[in-house]
Amino acid sequence: MRDETEIESWSAQGPVTELSDEHCWQLLDAESFGRLAIDHQGRPDLFPIDFHVDARTIVFRTAEGNTKVRDLQANPYVALEADERSATTAKSVVLRGRAEIVTDDDEIARLDRVPLPPWIPSRPYTYVRITPASVRGRSFVHHLRVDRGA
Amino acid sequence: MRDETEIESWSAQGPVTELSDEHCWQLLDAESFGRLAIDHQGRPDLFPIDFHVDARTIVFRTAEGNTKVRDLQANPYVALEADERSATTAKSVVLRGRAEIVTDDDEIARLDRVPLPPWIPSRPYTYVRITPASVRGRSFVHHLRVDRGA
Repeated sequence: MRDETEIESWSAQGPVTELSDEHCWQLLDAESFGRLAIDHQGRPDLFPIDFHVDARTIVFRTAEGNTKVRDLQANPYVALEADERSATTAKSVVLRGRAEIVTDDDEIARLDRVPLPPWIPSRPYTYVRITPASVRGRSFVHHLRVDRGA
Repeated sequence: MRDETEIESWSAQGPVTELSDEHCWQLLDAESFGRLAIDHQGRPDLFPIDFHVDARTIVFRTAEGNTKVRDLQANPYVALEADERSATTAKSVVLRGRAEIVTDDDEIARLDRVPLPPWIPSRPYTYVRITPASVRGRSFVHHLRVDRGA
């Protein structure tokens, strides 16, 4: 785990501070909407997802047997991003890890009670769990919204 | 181009409407902050980026010769996501395409004048242009923020 002390560095978005691991998980806990990058036949694909933090893993639901599930079975490596934005700063956390389909019935019953958005009951779904290999968060301290009217 | 009529369907995030191509580009034009998915040695990686829409391509800056640039030279296929959120809905646009480094001097001089966040002048940078192969936008009409206090 990195120290809570934040380090000034530089990025394509301008001056940047690295967030501690603790700070990254706080942001992931507070956010429920993120973006999932997966591999689709050698090319990246990206999906908005609603996720839930479950004991420092990420859980989300998807339709059973869809393309995303097949892609994850072919290549389980994924990246998830969630962020918090204000007028002057953007904090972004990227978690990289491996995804697996949750198959244990007791686990599924337990996950049916976690706070994820309401479900359409007639449609079969599956839970996917991402076990992180790395988590990195950055705060773009002087991030500016671009004025398109200029 | 899809018709402006929006189609109700279903997703892991609940009921969803597909956005027209025009609507997708309006959202991309209005947003300057997005997430870029690239391939890093067979595994997806994800970065927050500031981007600019330039004649229905996406342009962003990155540090010259960094890992991201090397990854894009190894596999130019990328996905970019940008979204607009309110208390009750989330609109998310995903563009997939090919990235290439901008090398033409006149083009670089022109891009130096587009509205991207201020730059640290001492650091060499490069422009990357994404030419889209597909653009898809969805509006999650009943997206709910999860109450973590429950």
